[in-house]
Amino acid sequence: MVDTEIPGFWAVVPAGGAGTRLWPLSRSDSPKFLHDLTGSGRTLLEQTHDRLTPIVGDRVLVVTGEPHRDAVRRQLGALPDDAVLVEPSARDSMAAIGLAAAVLERRGAEVMASFAADHVIDDAERFHDTVRTAVAAARDGWLVTIGIVPTHPSPAFGYVRQGAELPDHPGVRLVAEFVEKPSVAVAEGYLAAGEYRWNAGMFVVRPTVLLDLLAEQDPDFAAMLRTIAAEPDRLAELWERLPRIAIDHAVAEPAAAAGRVASVPGGFGWDDVGDFDSLAALLGDESRLSVLGRDGEVEAVDASGLVVSGTGRVVAVIGLDDVVVVDTPDALLVTSRERAQDVKAIVARLRERGRTDVL
Amino acid sequence: MVDTEIPGFWAVVPAGGAGTRLWPLSRSDSPKFLHDLTGSGRTLLEQTHDRLTPIVGDRVLVVTGEPHRDAVRRQLGALPDDAVLVEPSARDSMAAIGLAAAVLERRGAEVMASFAADHVIDDAERFHDTVRTAVAAARDGWLVTIGIVPTHPSPAFGYVRQGAELPDHPGVRLVAEFVEKPSVAVAEGYLAAGEYRWNAGMFVVRPTVLLDLLAEQDPDFAAMLRTIAAEPDRLAELWERLPRIAIDHAVAEPAAAAGRVASVPGGFGWDDVGDFDSLAALLGDESRLSVLGRDGEVEAVDASGLVVSGTGRVVAVIGLDDVVVVDTPDALLVTSRERAQDVKAIVARLRERGRTDVL
Repeated sequence: MVDTEIPGFWAVVPAGGAGTRLWPLSRSDSPKFLHDLTGSGRTLLEQTHDRLTPIVGDRVLVVTGEPHRDAVRRQLGALPDDAVLVEPSARDSMAAIGLAAAVLERRGAEVMASFAADHVIDDAERFHDTVRTAVAAARDGWLVTIGIVPTHPSPAFGYVRQGAELPDHPGVRLVAEFVEKPSVAVAEGYLAAGEYRWNAGMFVVRPTVLLDLLAEQDPDFAAMLRTIAAEPDRLAELWERLPRIAIDHAVAEPAAAAGRVASVPGGFGWDDVGDFDSLAALLGDESRLSVLGRDGEVEAVDASGLVVSGTGRVVAVIGLDDVVVVDTPDALLVTSRERAQDVKAIVARLRERGRTDVL
Repeated sequence: MVDTEIPGFWAVVPAGGAGTRLWPLSRSDSPKFLHDLTGSGRTLLEQTHDRLTPIVGDRVLVVTGEPHRDAVRRQLGALPDDAVLVEPSARDSMAAIGLAAAVLERRGAEVMASFAADHVIDDAERFHDTVRTAVAAARDGWLVTIGIVPTHPSPAFGYVRQGAELPDHPGVRLVAEFVEKPSVAVAEGYLAAGEYRWNAGMFVVRPTVLLDLLAEQDPDFAAMLRTIAAEPDRLAELWERLPRIAIDHAVAEPAAAAGRVASVPGGFGWDDVGDFDSLAALLGDESRLSVLGRDGEVEAVDASGLVVSGTGRVVAVIGLDDVVVVDTPDALLVTSRERAQDVKAIVARLRERGRTDVL
């Protein structure tokens, strides 16, 4: 299919998240989406924008925190002024995406979709095709989620269980339920069953449908979002009263239970680059030491895994398999791919000790 | 025994050696002996000097290279001017110790002993007792070596096989032979046999006896050393003509074959800190992560081994046993205790690439 813009369709790009499992690469003042994690020369935010432009043109709304506003604008230089919504504080995904929906409802957007700023997708064309299919179903009033076809029994992602195909939309399925991150054993069962997709947080929906679904669960929440969109001066005042809740819990799960959510399978490669294990998998093969960053010289003898080279120093690794070395000017991490999830324990400990200077 | 000076006895301290297996802590311009490797607040050179002072007073002769002369003087501030012999270039241990012998012969020293500047000894009092016993035998014309009682079947050291006890010197044994670094299996046999000691390079001998033993093997070598001692202005001219050979091969092995070497068992803890594995063993127990250096904050989760913290950065180690992390301003090493010997392969590779700036 030719890559042409989808009329009346807007992309919402939530650019937030602490990314503590990618410490010390990701910091509170320099989160994951601002980094080039694939060695492509483009940051994850830039790649996300590059990927969306062919189908939305300049109809992009980035939602980010005050501390990252300038960096976002710097990276996405060509953005119109009203293309960045700034959250006064982090209040989880329902507030962020809901505010974008309320703003887009007023701008007359027909359909919107949320695509996180820090995910990696390997096939833009298949991605565009999938989005087109999802938009078509969304125009008919469905809350559509793009469910990634799993490649392995990951315990790091939530899943979507698919139901029957929609009569009017070939290839689009009802969502029977959203399920939380499973154990590997349970995930293996999902993979064998074949009816499960990874929940990548990509929701495609009419802004009004999304807000109305929210209103069914929490009328005040939806009303406040619409008030802020109508009276932007009241953002600071109302924002702090919005519940902290994920869009999955606030809208997607109850709507799925009511049979109002549909799913389009996404057959492109996708990863949320949640930790250094997944970054290592993304960058290299199992047998060698991958290097991210071109500053320093990395010498490896009988080593595999990942070195993030961020200081210009010589880094020598000998006799360690699946090792993770992250070298930054003020903090060094050494661990294994297997223990990559435990990086957050170090972050928690440093926070306890008041070392916010390195967080 | 009370620690009193041994009359007429001089200590020779060779302070040299590249220490490439301790890279990037040890560098060509800052070798092992200039570092505090035990966390005591004193460098190995300072500790060596501290240990000798009670038995030699100020009768110490340090032999070092031109590049380290100033650092040696800085660390051992109270040294007399003629207490440091400067080698124009590194020409192995026979030239270094032989020159010291020739100088001390002219100063009228009765007995001398060589003690490397970069070894660790844990019991100064037993060391002093051992030296006294060795000096007594050396006064009778023996070349005496202090043989360390092995604590484990180390493949990293040469061994001395003991023979019969000397009739006039209880506890002192003939040396049947010197043997090169063995395999672990062979070393296990040595340990079981009980007649083997580690060769720690500690030779106790009358200067004239040492030079005469050398003259039997290589008359020119001995003559050149005595000429340099008599005419110090000829050092630069003659030094480059001296053979590069270890004292073990030049003198100790042939003398042992002729039945002229004796051995005193050293029952104190001793290590030459040859690599990061032995440094880790020296500093800690098997179950925890030892930290050398107090600059930075080290956070460990399920980790054991060694961190050398030399930059003030936060160092976090997760889920790695027997790991070695050496953090310096321009180079970082990550390996395992098991592979500590392979550090020299990295050094060789960096040398090939012309990275002498970090060597």
